[in-house]
Amino acid sequence: MSMGFGKIIATARYLPEKVVTNDDLTEWLDTSDEWIETRTGIKQRHIAEEENTSDMCLRVAEKLIDKATIDPMSLDFIIVATMSPDYTSPSVACQVQGQLGAKKAMAFDVTAACAGFVYALATAENFVRSGMTRGIVIGGEKISKLLDWQDRSAAVLFGDGAAGVLLEANEEPSIIKQMLRADGERANALTSGFRKNSNIFHEETETNTALSMDGRGIWNFALNDVTKSLKEFIGEESVDYYLLHQANKRIIEKMARKMNEPIEKFPMNLMNYGNTSAASIPILLDELVEANVLSLNSKQKVVLTGYGGGLAWGNLLIQL
Amino acid sequence: MSMGFGKIIATARYLPEKVVTNDDLTEWLDTSDEWIETRTGIKQRHIAEEENTSDMCLRVAEKLIDKATIDPMSLDFIIVATMSPDYTSPSVACQVQGQLGAKKAMAFDVTAACAGFVYALATAENFVRSGMTRGIVIGGEKISKLLDWQDRSAAVLFGDGAAGVLLEANEEPSIIKQMLRADGERANALTSGFRKNSNIFHEETETNTALSMDGRGIWNFALNDVTKSLKEFIGEESVDYYLLHQANKRIIEKMARKMNEPIEKFPMNLMNYGNTSAASIPILLDELVEANVLSLNSKQKVVLTGYGGGLAWGNLLIQL
Repeated sequence: MSMGFGKIIATARYLPEKVVTNDDLTEWLDTSDEWIETRTGIKQRHIAEEENTSDMCLRVAEKLIDKATIDPMSLDFIIVATMSPDYTSPSVACQVQGQLGAKKAMAFDVTAACAGFVYALATAENFVRSGMTRGIVIGGEKISKLLDWQDRSAAVLFGDGAAGVLLEANEEPSIIKQMLRADGERANALTSGFRKNSNIFHEETETNTALSMDGRGIWNFALNDVTKSLKEFIGEESVDYYLLHQANKRIIEKMARKMNEPIEKFPMNLMNYGNTSAASIPILLDELVEANVLSLNSKQKVVLTGYGGGLAWGNLLIQL
Repeated sequence: MSMGFGKIIATARYLPEKVVTNDDLTEWLDTSDEWIETRTGIKQRHIAEEENTSDMCLRVAEKLIDKATIDPMSLDFIIVATMSPDYTSPSVACQVQGQLGAKKAMAFDVTAACAGFVYALATAENFVRSGMTRGIVIGGEKISKLLDWQDRSAAVLFGDGAAGVLLEANEEPSIIKQMLRADGERANALTSGFRKNSNIFHEETETNTALSMDGRGIWNFALNDVTKSLKEFIGEESVDYYLLHQANKRIIEKMARKMNEPIEKFPMNLMNYGNTSAASIPILLDELVEANVLSLNSKQKVVLTGYGGGLAWGNLLIQL
């Protein structure tokens, strides 16, 4: 058993080309730019057309390989967090593994909705601690295929995209602490991708399979349960930046206040992408690295906090 | 960081009540009991009607709690391997967590098709090595909802069910060795659960979403790649039993021969259940424990080998 710990040595993101503004949505939805922006902070989102989730994740994997100038054959694992896979088999991770030529990598998907990236990164860290030396963790989503585009309560909130990190074994712990949580008693607060529960002996009557969300319930969940767990998780630790799941600007502002931390420690990009579920945190991470707000060898302390359907949530403390 | 290792302290299974024999299938399929049994060994399968995957997994979790007489509140994690979840969010694991009252457990699903249980158990082991002390790992599938029941090449092969184990931290390693593998270049050899890749900007033309399998390709994969990896994995180790994924009797017989091991070391139950994907290995494990062929404190050495869609496969060496 190696005593290695995971260190993030590269980050990358991929957003589909098509941008859909709030105004665009008013062409068929009874909504407005002002209504959406006031309540959520979202101004636009990227939407994938022909591309599926695996296509976007592959682009991220290719960028990670390029940035780190490594051989895909040197990867031990590819883990993808998604609630919008192309198939239930093969996994998105296997599709990426094959197209990347990462023949030695094991590959599987993690399902934990908007907490998916945090769950997947914690999982990957544990594989490194158990002896693996290099791998990729991606959050990738084509939420747009799960939406009822006539339902303005959900259609305005989400976007598509993918992003991830290259993790490599290192002597010093970098992912210092992990806390994963769930509350399945509130499983109905966000449902998506219901697959008709029918076979030749039983006909399912439920027909609405689109993503459906109890907005108020999720709001309370974020401001109460997630914030409480984050406070407990941080303790007396001094943190440079909090990379929260990018769902809603007002939620993040309120969480910052409850944490007694300046809003400057809570970078946001949801105005440009909407809620990209498992992709939101790594997209933000990659943008901040690109903008030199974060540097991968800076020893900056960063918290990643994902939360959403399940309900599932989690916090990771990382020293870059 | 605790130095605990995972030990299996209870096993359980749940099969839906309805039994469908090969003869039953001939009512609407041009096939025969003799044809199916000669080529696969399968005589019957259990098929879930109203029950969905989460319902079966919950029954397994309840049985595990009962058998070990523990408080669900003492669980740190619930990991479910499935390629037939109720939803893409919430995860099956979260549904089980909520209904079980395991409020302190984190919960997520693992997607690795028929290798799912092996992948999930390896993942769980790593969480235990990183400090968690108790959790549940379940493989659960309602494959029947993914099938085209008019397609005799696939409909005769699969069955529904769920099973799992309770894992607890222990001083001695019990899951001694893990080897996880994938080959995404053959991702198309088994596809299932394709979700229409459509949104308001793009209309998907593909309409066939049923499970589809290249039988010959999977056959060769099992007899070549999986067998080769298993040989390499075992090395000089002496093994009491091989619990292989239960897809096809003839594959298992040929693998036993290639391994130069007596067929008696390769217990089978696929005649009664068909291929239950991620559930097949834990169903077999629980039956063997119930029959006293295996005992949980016997120090017997058992290999679990899962393989299937992805392509993904894996081997675990366990000292009970």
